Amino acid sequence: VKAVKSKQVSAEKKSREKISESLDVLILGGGSFGTAIGTLLANNGRKVMLWVNRAEQVKEINGRHTNKNYFPDLYLPSNLRATTDLKKYGTVSEILCFAVPTKYFREVARQVGDFVTGDQILVHVAKGIEPHTYKRMSEILREETCALKIGVLSGPTLAKELMAGQPAGALVASHFEEVVSATQKLFQGSPLRLYGGSDVIGTEIGGAFKNIIALLAGAAAGMGFGENTKALLVTRGLSEMAQYGVANGADVFTFGGLAGVGDLMATCFSPLSRNHQVGRRLAQGETLEKILATSTQVAEGVSTTKVIYHQAIDLRLDLPLVRAAYRVLYEGVTLTEALQELNERPLGKELVRLLHR
Amino acid sequence: VKAVKSKQVSAEKKSREKISESLDVLILGGGSFGTAIGTLLANNGRKVMLWVNRAEQVKEINGRHTNKNYFPDLYLPSNLRATTDLKKYGTVSEILCFAVPTKYFREVARQVGDFVTGDQILVHVAKGIEPHTYKRMSEILREETCALKIGVLSGPTLAKELMAGQPAGALVASHFEEVVSATQKLFQGSPLRLYGGSDVIGTEIGGAFKNIIALLAGAAAGMGFGENTKALLVTRGLSEMAQYGVANGADVFTFGGLAGVGDLMATCFSPLSRNHQVGRRLAQGETLEKILATSTQVAEGVSTTKVIYHQAIDLRLDLPLVRAAYRVLYEGVTLTEALQELNERPLGKELVRLLHR
Repeated sequence: VKAVKSKQVSAEKKSREKISESLDVLILGGGSFGTAIGTLLANNGRKVMLWVNRAEQVKEINGRHTNKNYFPDLYLPSNLRATTDLKKYGTVSEILCFAVPTKYFREVARQVGDFVTGDQILVHVAKGIEPHTYKRMSEILREETCALKIGVLSGPTLAKELMAGQPAGALVASHFEEVVSATQKLFQGSPLRLYGGSDVIGTEIGGAFKNIIALLAGAAAGMGFGENTKALLVTRGLSEMAQYGVANGADVFTFGGLAGVGDLMATCFSPLSRNHQVGRRLAQGETLEKILATSTQVAEGVSTTKVIYHQAIDLRLDLPLVRAAYRVLYEGVTLTEALQELNERPLGKELVRLLHR
Repeated sequence: VKAVKSKQVSAEKKSREKISESLDVLILGGGSFGTAIGTLLANNGRKVMLWVNRAEQVKEINGRHTNKNYFPDLYLPSNLRATTDLKKYGTVSEILCFAVPTKYFREVARQVGDFVTGDQILVHVAKGIEPHTYKRMSEILREETCALKIGVLSGPTLAKELMAGQPAGALVASHFEEVVSATQKLFQGSPLRLYGGSDVIGTEIGGAFKNIIALLAGAAAGMGFGENTKALLVTRGLSEMAQYGVANGADVFTFGGLAGVGDLMATCFSPLSRNHQVGRRLAQGETLEKILATSTQVAEGVSTTKVIYHQAIDLRLDLPLVRAAYRVLYEGVTLTEALQELNERPLGKELVRLLHR
């Protein structure tokens, strides 16, 4: 009897250990946004880890509780740990949250594809489109893994303000209600309020497209223009985003929400945004080469402009702001010339194309 | 033959004199916005006058070319003149542009009703709703005048930035294509780019509703919150604006345009806006009475909150941000309490009510 009892206790202990080893969420990527949501979730009492590439970064996060490349002045919660072992922690995590730049997305998805099982949830927060293939990140997850429970989280979530615990809201969209509710539950009680939706395409396109307009808004700010000009850019940009989105199968109403106009305006009105900063430096006369060479963080808008410009031509869409951004970034047109080209367009109606599609 | 010729010449001269006396537009109101669009139009070579109430203001504008109450550091164009004679200049003006606060709107419309003819165009730029009657400004124009050619001009147009000649855009909406094209023509060549539309109701509601959200955005800024919080407020505010608008017969797409989210974001992100300033002072602990007693300019949002709050109850709409603003302004609830009430609302879907109407 005693031996049996001892065996039971040992099994229970083992099971408990296994539970204590399991994670609510593994965040893939230790950049600014991955670190910010990791911080929110750790502060919210969730079992969360960051997967990062470099062993030194693991040492820094687990030892000194900092991530100085992104947040030089902040301490991270001590229960936010990091690892380089993707498979070990990816296997025991209920949710895997992809917070890697578009550029490395497929590569990381492929690594996850080696171990992930169909009961696990994959959510991503990447805001871009794959060059050449025009694929969205959820499509890459479908191609590279066996997972079906896929979602996207997107909205006006500047990392620095999340780190400061300021109230924020975002959209989590998935074809699976379970993905939406599990992700909402994760953040419930944190300062990030998550709304649910099912339009994955629109949510992903909003996050990618907005970076193009943010570049232009940064340029406008760099030229000394204020809120009227920015609001004009954002609103006309929203119209182009919606046209592009609908042509790709999105629900037009998504663009009126947090992952559409919400994210767009925060990115365009905040001088903190990376894409905004690129635009501002363009207005100051710096070349794109120089700006890219001296940026430590990725400004997705630069490559997204090229992708969407070319896809818009394929789709026969008339997107004047996308074209303006493309011409400034890749064809050596000055901002003043681009502005003049926009001004010379005939006066017309608002949203006419969208309504008559 | 000579006499006949002389008579002809004299008639031509008279006709020419009459033409030179005629105006492209008489702007009713010499506040910040009336002065700003008057300045744009005078600089654009249009024959434009401002009608104002006080003879001293006429003297100041025509003599010193200033309007120091609103623009202490600026000179007005010398071809922007002012008058107190509404009938004399209102009769010879192709377009009458109402730039008076909601409070005086019906009174001024009644005065115009005494002389206006059916071939004249009335455009207004007022952003409010009449208390008790819930009437929009275009409805007041219909009630108080014989005019049918009525339009509304609205969008992200902060007066100070217009005065600085910065690029801006707005919507002009009317059931008459002629009103849209005449107003567009007026501004063509100026830094204000006008888009055309036909949803008068939505355009008017956008301009009125946004002031409620601007109050809250000012309060959020006063509490130290940044772009994420503002974007959340604006986006959820947009959803409430659309729900309220659709319940009043507006086209939901108008709220995705310049007169909807465009104006909303400029007002909410700019510290220049009057409603924003009221919110900011509330956050600093000042009472509404004190704020109103020490404001020289009208913050329409304070009265609009009351009107829309009560109408939303009549329409059985659930508008949590409107209610929060009402409770802070009129029920003595603190901003912190209002924020907590908002946070305690259950998590839900985005835009669900709008889609299922």
